[in-house]
Amino acid sequence: MPLNKRYKMQVYLDNNATTMCDPQVVEVMQPFFSELYGNPSSLHKFGTSSHPAIRNAINQVYNALNASDNDDIVFTSCATESNNWVLKSVWLDHIVNGDKNHIVTSEVEHPSVLTTCKFLEEQGVKVTYLPVNEEGVVSANTVRSFITDKTALVSIMWASNETGMLFPIKEIGEICKQKGVLFHSDGVQAVGKIPVDLQDIHVDFVSMSAHKFHGPKGIGALYIRNSQKLSPLLHGGEQMGHRRSGTLNVPYIVGMGKAIEIATTNIREKMASIRAKRDRLEDALLELSETFVIGSRERRTPNTILISIRGVEGEGMLWDLNNGQIGASTGSACASEDLEANTVMLAIGADSELAHTGIRLSLSRFTTDAEIDYTIAHFKSAVARLRAISSSFAIVQPTKGGEALACEMH
Amino acid sequence: MPLNKRYKMQVYLDNNATTMCDPQVVEVMQPFFSELYGNPSSLHKFGTSSHPAIRNAINQVYNALNASDNDDIVFTSCATESNNWVLKSVWLDHIVNGDKNHIVTSEVEHPSVLTTCKFLEEQGVKVTYLPVNEEGVVSANTVRSFITDKTALVSIMWASNETGMLFPIKEIGEICKQKGVLFHSDGVQAVGKIPVDLQDIHVDFVSMSAHKFHGPKGIGALYIRNSQKLSPLLHGGEQMGHRRSGTLNVPYIVGMGKAIEIATTNIREKMASIRAKRDRLEDALLELSETFVIGSRERRTPNTILISIRGVEGEGMLWDLNNGQIGASTGSACASEDLEANTVMLAIGADSELAHTGIRLSLSRFTTDAEIDYTIAHFKSAVARLRAISSSFAIVQPTKGGEALACEMH
Repeated sequence: MPLNKRYKMQVYLDNNATTMCDPQVVEVMQPFFSELYGNPSSLHKFGTSSHPAIRNAINQVYNALNASDNDDIVFTSCATESNNWVLKSVWLDHIVNGDKNHIVTSEVEHPSVLTTCKFLEEQGVKVTYLPVNEEGVVSANTVRSFITDKTALVSIMWASNETGMLFPIKEIGEICKQKGVLFHSDGVQAVGKIPVDLQDIHVDFVSMSAHKFHGPKGIGALYIRNSQKLSPLLHGGEQMGHRRSGTLNVPYIVGMGKAIEIATTNIREKMASIRAKRDRLEDALLELSETFVIGSRERRTPNTILISIRGVEGEGMLWDLNNGQIGASTGSACASEDLEANTVMLAIGADSELAHTGIRLSLSRFTTDAEIDYTIAHFKSAVARLRAISSSFAIVQPTKGGEALACEMH
Repeated sequence: MPLNKRYKMQVYLDNNATTMCDPQVVEVMQPFFSELYGNPSSLHKFGTSSHPAIRNAINQVYNALNASDNDDIVFTSCATESNNWVLKSVWLDHIVNGDKNHIVTSEVEHPSVLTTCKFLEEQGVKVTYLPVNEEGVVSANTVRSFITDKTALVSIMWASNETGMLFPIKEIGEICKQKGVLFHSDGVQAVGKIPVDLQDIHVDFVSMSAHKFHGPKGIGALYIRNSQKLSPLLHGGEQMGHRRSGTLNVPYIVGMGKAIEIATTNIREKMASIRAKRDRLEDALLELSETFVIGSRERRTPNTILISIRGVEGEGMLWDLNNGQIGASTGSACASEDLEANTVMLAIGADSELAHTGIRLSLSRFTTDAEIDYTIAHFKSAVARLRAISSSFAIVQPTKGGEALACEMH
């Protein structure tokens, strides 16, 4: 922030990277640090006194997902662990110690899926990375056409971290069920943002992470349909019904339960409120010439905009927004230390110059109308500033990007 | 607790299972939940504003262990993860993709080592489980004699969770260095309890866990000497210098740094204070006839007593202590839901009846003299009550257990 200037507000619009821990969540965690601190595996009252709270948290997650009593929900340290667990244990159970040899995923998965798949390829697994369509999603028919009788697992994200686009999970689930193939979905960007009903949708494994819905960082979960076999990733003391060893992180388990309960209570009203702000922001930004937003609003999570601004390099824009106390992103936070082109934009066919101009704005239920107003004003003046010094903007072909991307353009 | 009775105090003597999170630790974590909550991988100030605190925490861990700048310290979700990581990645790097086939460990390791070794045996790895001597530790010579030119790794705990006995880590480290074999130590019961100087002692990998030294549950670390190769267990966004993926758990990282700093500042004075209380408790309990404590006091962590009371079944004793508001254990918390004989006592040759009588009392720096007084009184009366109804105590051979165990006996 320039030292000679004082901003009235700071605006956090990077909620797909992580969210503020809800103060209500922080509050319910407190007793489990220094009061009810026993090890839940212990037999004495110091250990067992946290059991009711743990049971309550587990119930909160089951209820939020409409999981069946036959299903398992296992707390992990993060969705990265959940994703690694599913991929590596399916490899072990069905490829190393089975007769399969193939995994189907998409080109636009989170690094915790893609890098794990690269690792599995080094171990001899055949991995198909499905292409995405012009909206950056994989169609169900594409999935169907790549499943073979050697396919052990299909792993497709529920919603894109970068664009917010929703994948056809229900349809893919039906195909996998029909073909007898296990189906995993990285649900990190869906759970807590949109309704997720696991009795309506057939998925075998769903990864989720509390810090994407105003819970703490460092806890996630894996949903396992019908309590089916999946070798542990972490062996040891056999906690979590022998599925995931390690002393239970009681404060965060309680926090995750509370966070998912808050996020999914009246979720449609919450979605409508966030979407109204998102759409207002999006409408305003699209008033700028040569701007493009990926994907239709109806098929996106209600909080996300991935916008490209011809002639404005993404990192420069982030820098300018940051100076104005606005936090945004060029894409996945996990990849944001590398100044690379947006992978989803490249996957849907954007030219390299445009793929370097993507800015992701992701709202939360804590985003206010005043913050939206402030962001619109600052964003527009930043684009004007940066385009004035851009070497590429003057020579750009006005409509090319918009046509190639088949996106909303103004 | 009986409903007609009110106890003046509750006494937590199960600090080897987990500890109370120090209120100072809880306090330093607070700002990172709802104020400085950005993702540290993000480029904006919401993300980078936690960097100084994270760097400070890393420094606190380096300082506490006297690690060299060439070494790596990687935060994990727990010591179970750290132990799984070392064992499984050494398997991958040096057995699956190398010319070794053998791992050496002991019979008395924590379940996160033993169960992982069982898993690796199923994958074709040869594992040697070294026997322990009458004090329940593995001698350095035993380790030396089982290392072959096919040995990839020696994994021996630093201190026993059950007895507190210290293993000859410095000597084993020299042997492994000499033989060119990687050496891992599960340091969970050592770090924060006794001085651990990693420039003095040659260990390649050390696992540790914050909740054993008054930090939060759900965070641990792995020390890696000389930043050597070790394939990741969790692939993904390449956090922690590409070693462990997953959004950083900033509050707990900050908390772990604070906790290890407090635990290791003036550690010798802290040890002396805890030991004085431990020894007073131990002396008093050994006034009871037919009681046995495993291992010499000088070679134990200063907070631990594993005591056997002939004729008093461990779970019955725990139940009675619990009614008196005293939290203790029969051994590893991870195994305490199963009513099994104490594995260390079986390993050192105790008969099965005696191995079912082990009670572990583990103190902390928060244990008070008044709590010790209360525990002595309650413990003694509990033993009298339980021996009065014991079917086995009347026919016991007085000295047999004591001789077989070669332990302190009164």
